[in-house]
Amino acid sequence: MVGAVLRAGVLNYGEPVSEPKAQIRPGVADLLGVLAYGELSAFDRLAEDARTAPTLPGRAALASMAAAEIGHYALLERHLAGYGISVEEAMAPFQSHIDAFQTSTAPKSWLESLVKAYVVDSLAADLYRELAQLLDEETRQLVLVVLDDTGHSAFAEREVAAAIAADSTQRDRLALWGRRLLGEALTQAQYIVAERDGLAELIVAGTGDLSGIAALFRRLQQGHTKRMQVLGLG
Amino acid sequence: MVGAVLRAGVLNYGEPVSEPKAQIRPGVADLLGVLAYGELSAFDRLAEDARTAPTLPGRAALASMAAAEIGHYALLERHLAGYGISVEEAMAPFQSHIDAFQTSTAPKSWLESLVKAYVVDSLAADLYRELAQLLDEETRQLVLVVLDDTGHSAFAEREVAAAIAADSTQRDRLALWGRRLLGEALTQAQYIVAERDGLAELIVAGTGDLSGIAALFRRLQQGHTKRMQVLGLG
Repeated sequence: MVGAVLRAGVLNYGEPVSEPKAQIRPGVADLLGVLAYGELSAFDRLAEDARTAPTLPGRAALASMAAAEIGHYALLERHLAGYGISVEEAMAPFQSHIDAFQTSTAPKSWLESLVKAYVVDSLAADLYRELAQLLDEETRQLVLVVLDDTGHSAFAEREVAAAIAADSTQRDRLALWGRRLLGEALTQAQYIVAERDGLAELIVAGTGDLSGIAALFRRLQQGHTKRMQVLGLG
Repeated sequence: MVGAVLRAGVLNYGEPVSEPKAQIRPGVADLLGVLAYGELSAFDRLAEDARTAPTLPGRAALASMAAAEIGHYALLERHLAGYGISVEEAMAPFQSHIDAFQTSTAPKSWLESLVKAYVVDSLAADLYRELAQLLDEETRQLVLVVLDDTGHSAFAEREVAAAIAADSTQRDRLALWGRRLLGEALTQAQYIVAERDGLAELIVAGTGDLSGIAALFRRLQQGHTKRMQVLGLG
């Protein structure tokens, strides 16, 4: 594992991983920085939620999902290092917003944990799939790999469906929870875009104009609504 | 990731992964069960300790080590499934002892976390390398892969050495901590051997007699003493 960790570059922070490549646009570094801290933060969330799992298999399943997030984090770290950017540097501006999101949406039950994992991962995936179109080929491929379903969906859909079948009063509570997650996520996303010029420019360039950003957020909400229906919470 | 999780078999508990192979000795199933729950438990410990990391790189490093434990857990799960044994079944008898160890040795600082990760991993590695000699070739290879240094050593040695250099009063406190970890670990290990006949028989068969078990524990203590010296805590 020491090998893997070193290859991932996680341990040899400080030392440059290789000769820096050409420059990277600030908006792109921001985009990858948000994604990287999102993965690290998701690892924490999933690892903590794993402890509340009602069964050992559920605990192992969430732990495996957390482990996958770290694999993705390592890919982003290596990619940024290739441009002479430390992942810490790239993540720093976004830590407070993502931490604020996690704090304001701390799950109070195993089901809330699952719905959150499902909703947040899917939202992030939708957002980055749209933004991936604005990236160079290498970065786009990286983002698509990192966004590859980390297994929350299938597992969460099955567990939530079973829970609702067993106790229908759960449905309304979880539906409200899902709406709250969407609201908090979009709030922090808007803060981030408002604060980071490079990021805003990247999105405006890709979506046409400011109304393009509004349309993007609308599409994210529509995707969320569809997923809540799939989950039986629509 | 869903693929990886399914390949690892973590999600498809319940369903047999393949046609069961020949029987496995109860002592061997126990050995792998302790190891599997040890990995799952180490994941929790490392993931929690990652949050106390003083820096983002330290946090990412511990998170990566936690992720490695889950990779090992998945290997053990698959191996046991090959013999028609669910990993939950194999782990169940040992959960209370390992949980008791973790509770009685909850780190109170980042340095205590690092020393614990280092000491416990090394003890487990020494123990299983000795026991691996008693196993069939396939199982021995599996155990050796799972015990492959998960990167605690290099990272812990560097961080602890730096901390002691910066504040020598840390040395005595951490030296005491190391002794306590050894004591608690051997206590739980002795409970486990005392409770599981198959395990005791396996060890006695491999070490000669009961005095062989005593000699094994003595060797574990000697290895620990050497490591504490390497860490600057001897």
